[in-house]
Amino acid sequence: MYSGDVPPVRRALRRPAGPKTAPKGQRRPRVRLDNDARRAQLLLLAKKSFSDRSYDDVSIDDLAREAKISKGLLYHYFPTKRDLYVAGLREIADELVDRVHAVPVDLPPADRVRAGLDAYLDHISQHARAFVSLMRGGIGSDPEVAGVIEGVRRRLSERFLEGSPFRPALAGNPKFEIAIRGWIGFVEHATIDWCADPKLTREELRDLLSQVMLAIITALPQIIR
Amino acid sequence: MYSGDVPPVRRALRRPAGPKTAPKGQRRPRVRLDNDARRAQLLLLAKKSFSDRSYDDVSIDDLAREAKISKGLLYHYFPTKRDLYVAGLREIADELVDRVHAVPVDLPPADRVRAGLDAYLDHISQHARAFVSLMRGGIGSDPEVAGVIEGVRRRLSERFLEGSPFRPALAGNPKFEIAIRGWIGFVEHATIDWCADPKLTREELRDLLSQVMLAIITALPQIIR
Repeated sequence: MYSGDVPPVRRALRRPAGPKTAPKGQRRPRVRLDNDARRAQLLLLAKKSFSDRSYDDVSIDDLAREAKISKGLLYHYFPTKRDLYVAGLREIADELVDRVHAVPVDLPPADRVRAGLDAYLDHISQHARAFVSLMRGGIGSDPEVAGVIEGVRRRLSERFLEGSPFRPALAGNPKFEIAIRGWIGFVEHATIDWCADPKLTREELRDLLSQVMLAIITALPQIIR
Repeated sequence: MYSGDVPPVRRALRRPAGPKTAPKGQRRPRVRLDNDARRAQLLLLAKKSFSDRSYDDVSIDDLAREAKISKGLLYHYFPTKRDLYVAGLREIADELVDRVHAVPVDLPPADRVRAGLDAYLDHISQHARAFVSLMRGGIGSDPEVAGVIEGVRRRLSERFLEGSPFRPALAGNPKFEIAIRGWIGFVEHATIDWCADPKLTREELRDLLSQVMLAIITALPQIIR
């Protein structure tokens, strides 16, 4: 089955494309896109599909149909469903980190914590179903996926420390580091629970999380001494 | 290959056991055990093996050899490696909950938190490798395994509330419930990190976790208002 965006090497090998002769019922409109545009289109579609549905509920058949391309061509860009999923997840993860990083580091600490949590919860709630199924297991156990999750944790905690009044004194302090990891665990568990069964408004959850953070910061001299 | 603890139905069907004729090198001593004792023996062995090594590094061949039984007989008790793993994990989980439950509820709150954390960390550090590989993915994504983990969280948080001065006023308060879930997330993440790379002593980690808990308790009126 021919399509406009076969990579150059394969395109050079194929016969000149004549008119399709597939029976009318099987004919679907095909859209010519260059490689980058096609990849971007598939990623966008994957991000949407995997955000709305769980990994197992998304099929390559559906994705190919929605993208109006053949399954074969989809597999050319992403050899497996997992590859497409990981690529989409990586983009969602990068967007999450970017949104949290957009919070100015020179805000007063309490405002900065609240604004960072706002950005985090905004983004997560757009992908709530996918977030819960990802964090509660399933595809989350894949080493590459686990690496993406761990990368988000690391980048968010590094950002949290950037410009923080604690940083110079506490860089490399193992108690402080483990307290930051624990705090991320607090936020993740509370957020997973909230996404699965939102009994609080987003603002109530944000306030709760930032109050807990401030309580920990207040107790810090005691904790790290 | 015959063995003393074939279940009664199969035992009735088999021919009278004569002397083994296997070549000398292949002969291994067999131990007759009744069903319950054999099951208990296999569970004990599984708990030890899965605590020392990751799920993927434990083989049924090794387990059968260590138990001095045939692979076939092992599969009679536990049809798959996963079944044996889940059964072992359930026992480790029950022991964890029992150890934390052994802490008297009438201790002063700060002492109770510390004693509960001592029991938790003691037990986890005995199974550190298994705990890290379980919580970081792999077999942890299995729905039954995820159910065991979730059961531990639920029972530990219920126990934490039992006899707590907060309980009557806060039962069913969604902010309080989510704070308890978050706290469990804090403990889990910090403990996973610590097991993987122990930069603190167990006592230092326990003190850090209990100080964070007390900081949250102190901030509670503000958090739940």
